[in-house]
Amino acid sequence: MNKKMNILMFSGDYDKALAALILANSAREMDIDVTMFFAFWGLLLVRDPNKMSKEDKSTYERIFANMTPKYIEELPISKMNFAGIGKKMLTEMMEENRTPKLEDFLMGAIKKGVNMQACKLSCEVMGFSEEELIEEVKIVTAYDYLKDAMESDIQLFI
Amino acid sequence: MNKKMNILMFSGDYDKALAALILANSAREMDIDVTMFFAFWGLLLVRDPNKMSKEDKSTYERIFANMTPKYIEELPISKMNFAGIGKKMLTEMMEENRTPKLEDFLMGAIKKGVNMQACKLSCEVMGFSEEELIEEVKIVTAYDYLKDAMESDIQLFI
Amino acid sequence: MNKKMNILMFSGDYDKALAALILANSAREMDIDVTMFFAFWGLLLVRDPNKMSKEDKSTYERIFANMTPKYIEELPISKMNFAGIGKKMLTEMMEENRTPKLEDFLMGAIKKGVNMQACKLSCEVMGFSEEELIEEVKIVTAYDYLKDAMESDIQLFI
Repeated sequence: MNKKMNILMFSGDYDKALAALILANSAREMDIDVTMFFAFWGLLLVRDPNKMSKEDKSTYERIFANMTPKYIEELPISKMNFAGIGKKMLTEMMEENRTPKLEDFLMGAIKKGVNMQACKLSCEVMGFSEEELIEEVKIVTAYDYLKDAMESDIQLFI
Repeated sequence: MNKKMNILMFSGDYDKALAALILANSAREMDIDVTMFFAFWGLLLVRDPNKMSKEDKSTYERIFANMTPKYIEELPISKMNFAGIGKKMLTEMMEENRTPKLEDFLMGAIKKGVNMQACKLSCEVMGFSEEELIEEVKIVTAYDYLKDAMESDIQLFI
Repeated sequence: MNKKMNILMFSGDYDKALAALILANSAREMDIDVTMFFAFWGLLLVRDPNKMSKEDKSTYERIFANMTPKYIEELPISKMNFAGIGKKMLTEMMEENRTPKLEDFLMGAIKKGVNMQACKLSCEVMGFSEEELIEEVKIVTAYDYLKDAMESDIQLFI
């Protein structure tokens, strides 16, 4: 039976998403089963930038959907000013080192068969429907998360 | 034998506390044993707003106790300005969706029998005595945390 | 066979590093095997303040190495302004309570035999060579991290 890793992706920060997705990709390359459960700000990682429904949204939900980044590369980093080091510098250094972009790691994770889940309650509060998320993402409950995490050999909250 | 989850609650952020307490409540509903270990800023979640001793506190400890939120609903969110989305907006969206408040999740967790622990060293540094915490919270050491986490099926640092 | 804990140290925040290193020290005192894997900002915890190579660094890497804290006690805290509580206040309260400093916990962890690892990809992006890190730190890949975490009884992302 395969080993298994479960990542609860709470943060919507560029750098934390990078860490999570690098782990997810590496684990799949080692044939480890991986589930990523996107909750709260983490949901912003799995929005489909081309699909945004304006119907069925309350005023707050519409404002929220419009003000938050629609595209994964636009996510902010966790420390805007870590000793003056901003996101631009991080991405320039990644490029210099030929590290793939966040989006590439996300696409890689999907291609490699990472199980992508979005938190039902978070979707409800933020007003996202399954159609507005990347196709491979399924909406599941906290119970489903716990069942999966319970069977996993590694659980991380990122 | 029951399954077991252990959450080390380090953060004092409203949104992270929400995530942790939703998980704790859901786990109890699935009959999973849950321990929450409140350390550092996480201690601010389990202060009893009605009990604050001014005796036995150094000047720093008194300033600290006065300046930090006394009531769980006053906690700040982890990203003050996540693309302009503040705490007010988050709580309005939760209300619109009829999601219970943070305090309700905390009371729910206690009622459902979540094992509530506060970190001894954090209490000492911040100058909180057991009497200033919610009644159900026991002060324990890092060793106690490790013993509990070691026996758990899920461990999360939030 | 010994129990085992693995900490992925992503954050470069003073308070989070303190939490991680207190856990690592306590675990060793209980004879638990401990691995710390330093990635991203966490790398700033294991820089050797006396060794900084200017050769083999690109312009960005040189700026990065110069602008970020060279010495562990200079790290910022995770919430600059948690209700006005800054790092100075935290360290004053720790001193009052005779809590050892962050550096003492780091040295303690090393002395007690915590297995210290730095993330290869992070080192490449940030331009750090193994010589610029504390002597006891070995550079390893995400695969090595996953193998170690998979065999651990506790895994935390801090």
